[in-house]
Amino acid sequence: MDIQQYITDVGQRARIASRLMARAETATKNRALTLIAEAIRRDAPALRLANQKDLDAARANGLEEAMLDRLTLSDQAIATMIEGLQQIVTLADPIGEISNMKYRPTGIQVGQMRVPLGVIGIIYEARPNVTIDAAGLCIKSGNATILRGGSEAIHCNQALAKLVKEGLKGAGLPADAVQVIETTDRAAVGALISMPEYVDVIIPRGGKGLIERLIKESKVPMIKHLDGICHVYIDDQADPEKAVKIAFNAKCHRYGTCNTMETLLIARAIAPQVLPELALLYRTKDVELRADDEAGKILRGCDYPHVTAATEEDWSTEYLAAILAVKIVDDMDAAIDHINHYSSHHTDSIVTENYTRTMRFLREVDSASVMVNASTRFADGFEFGLGAEIGISNDKLHARGPVGLDGLTSVKYVVFGHGEVRS
Amino acid sequence: MDIQQYITDVGQRARIASRLMARAETATKNRALTLIAEAIRRDAPALRLANQKDLDAARANGLEEAMLDRLTLSDQAIATMIEGLQQIVTLADPIGEISNMKYRPTGIQVGQMRVPLGVIGIIYEARPNVTIDAAGLCIKSGNATILRGGSEAIHCNQALAKLVKEGLKGAGLPADAVQVIETTDRAAVGALISMPEYVDVIIPRGGKGLIERLIKESKVPMIKHLDGICHVYIDDQADPEKAVKIAFNAKCHRYGTCNTMETLLIARAIAPQVLPELALLYRTKDVELRADDEAGKILRGCDYPHVTAATEEDWSTEYLAAILAVKIVDDMDAAIDHINHYSSHHTDSIVTENYTRTMRFLREVDSASVMVNASTRFADGFEFGLGAEIGISNDKLHARGPVGLDGLTSVKYVVFGHGEVRS
Repeated sequence: MDIQQYITDVGQRARIASRLMARAETATKNRALTLIAEAIRRDAPALRLANQKDLDAARANGLEEAMLDRLTLSDQAIATMIEGLQQIVTLADPIGEISNMKYRPTGIQVGQMRVPLGVIGIIYEARPNVTIDAAGLCIKSGNATILRGGSEAIHCNQALAKLVKEGLKGAGLPADAVQVIETTDRAAVGALISMPEYVDVIIPRGGKGLIERLIKESKVPMIKHLDGICHVYIDDQADPEKAVKIAFNAKCHRYGTCNTMETLLIARAIAPQVLPELALLYRTKDVELRADDEAGKILRGCDYPHVTAATEEDWSTEYLAAILAVKIVDDMDAAIDHINHYSSHHTDSIVTENYTRTMRFLREVDSASVMVNASTRFADGFEFGLGAEIGISNDKLHARGPVGLDGLTSVKYVVFGHGEVRS
Repeated sequence: MDIQQYITDVGQRARIASRLMARAETATKNRALTLIAEAIRRDAPALRLANQKDLDAARANGLEEAMLDRLTLSDQAIATMIEGLQQIVTLADPIGEISNMKYRPTGIQVGQMRVPLGVIGIIYEARPNVTIDAAGLCIKSGNATILRGGSEAIHCNQALAKLVKEGLKGAGLPADAVQVIETTDRAAVGALISMPEYVDVIIPRGGKGLIERLIKESKVPMIKHLDGICHVYIDDQADPEKAVKIAFNAKCHRYGTCNTMETLLIARAIAPQVLPELALLYRTKDVELRADDEAGKILRGCDYPHVTAATEEDWSTEYLAAILAVKIVDDMDAAIDHINHYSSHHTDSIVTENYTRTMRFLREVDSASVMVNASTRFADGFEFGLGAEIGISNDKLHARGPVGLDGLTSVKYVVFGHGEVRS
């Protein structure tokens, strides 16, 4: 198989399909989503068999348990996929919306129309549910999509692809609107990110290694985030009860998520009050605390069993584990400086009752999501009310923060004239 | 001079200045703009002298007349710069605007705040007025900017830079918020586009050669457009009078602009009626018509003096001259196919009285500005009501079409909580 030629063909077919998707009516797109959900329900046993093949191969290749877990298409996972599609059906169709139509002195009327991006390439790891989530969101937003899932899930993804195509055709939409790459050859990824003429945007979902490589090599713009080094800053005018609750939740609700707090900053004046209280909670979860000198003194003073000295590296480490960096700062200005220097610009939160500091923190912290008196764990498409999430962006151009249907769209200017010419 | 080190220093200083600019108040930014305008008025004679040095050097180097023209800072050009700054003062400050604040079932309130992009690098050719336009728009939108003008304008640009810094300092803003690169060494451009850690976006303004090179080499996202291959499609249900007026204006109002029509598409059924009429007008401007077979027959039938046979290359050529490609098409579907294939996705217009075709054309033509019954020449920030324009984008991510102040901003999610945690 000539990979370059194969991916070029896929790209050309996607481009053609994208034109038809761009003009598809809402009811037609919803019909396709419903048919896909029905097909998945009907073929659940076959999907589990295909998934079993992937799991057997993965075990034979010695894949680690966490990976196998993500690869597994359980009955629950299948039900969640179906539910996800049904939920996308209920979301408002963003396409075709015209806003801000205003008459200009020349007589023309100018506004903006929301339109699909075109062709979206999605590169992800061995989670078969992403195949359906991504296909569903791209169909609803009128895009064509090229999906490249992890090679470990190839059988399952191909089985899902067949059902997606069945649903598209059943609704009268082009089967090429969703194409799942049929080869596990890694050269396919290189080809996919090198054809801006057929692919409008790449959304990588996966580990830092994958994304760093794609950033270096991609010729196509990306919607991506590299990591989540999120902060909570407890101001000296914080409500201590809120502070403790939030700092505990932000670290311990889940360790492996990108919106989990990795560094806790505490104003010097309030540290002796809140840090020992927090330590009692972190102790129940056996959290390792990597503390600066001052925080370390307080923690050792209350016999915290698991304190180490933070190094410079800790301030820019995403632990994704029961580890937390802790630092005492002079005041909010010092906290903002620290955050703007070390944060991955994902999500940062202040706990304070002070109005002026709230407003300054919100404005001056340069991150995709900035919060006051709330856990960083809320930075999520569902929690923000987007209805669904295709990913999260730490970048400032185009989509920023959790990316929902709107992030898969663009706007163009539309002009209604009556024969006007420029003079 | 170590160029790499110099540009890194410039970038670091810009990043620091950008933090201060992001929190600057509207009145302070307006004060700086006003002070710069006053300084330009005061120092107009000195500016003209600096410009004379550039012009002398340019003449000695044998620069062509059109280039010298753009390089010249006439009294009129100086007055226009001052006026431009005063106009930017009157524009609403986009920064800090919070929209869509909605309560979520969890109790948090989620919305979006408009914020500056950060540091904007602008690379342009020998037009000194761009230095002031760009500086003004970046100041108003709370960004820091690094300006790299054409080397031919170095004396004039440095003189302008001094006045900009004077205005910034006078208003209490950091002088580093606007830095004009002090070297004409081309390596500076390479360094500037290679430091995403200090520069958030690059806006190139210049010829196709410059922009193609930057696309290949830039490590920083760009807001750019490559060329303007704009179309007018005259539908068989067009009002012939509007059609003739628009197709004449779109080509002949100005030849050298990116929103000038380069290809005219005419529905077969109406061609014998409108093309001879149009030919009478084009004849007055001695426009060369590169026609397909059918259009050629009609044009020769009415003795048009300057018809040649269009080749495949003509459909994707931006003439920027009194040359127009003309093609007869079956119907609107054929026109849309042609446009989506050959257009540079800049601006395309349909002339028709048919409602359904209007709506389909607006939705299905994949360009930054899509018009009905209006000249493509309207695709412009001032005409669209943006107040000012930093450039035009043919891309779909982030800004698309004419880019005004909003295009120099991003939004971040802001969350107002009351101690909420995720459960």
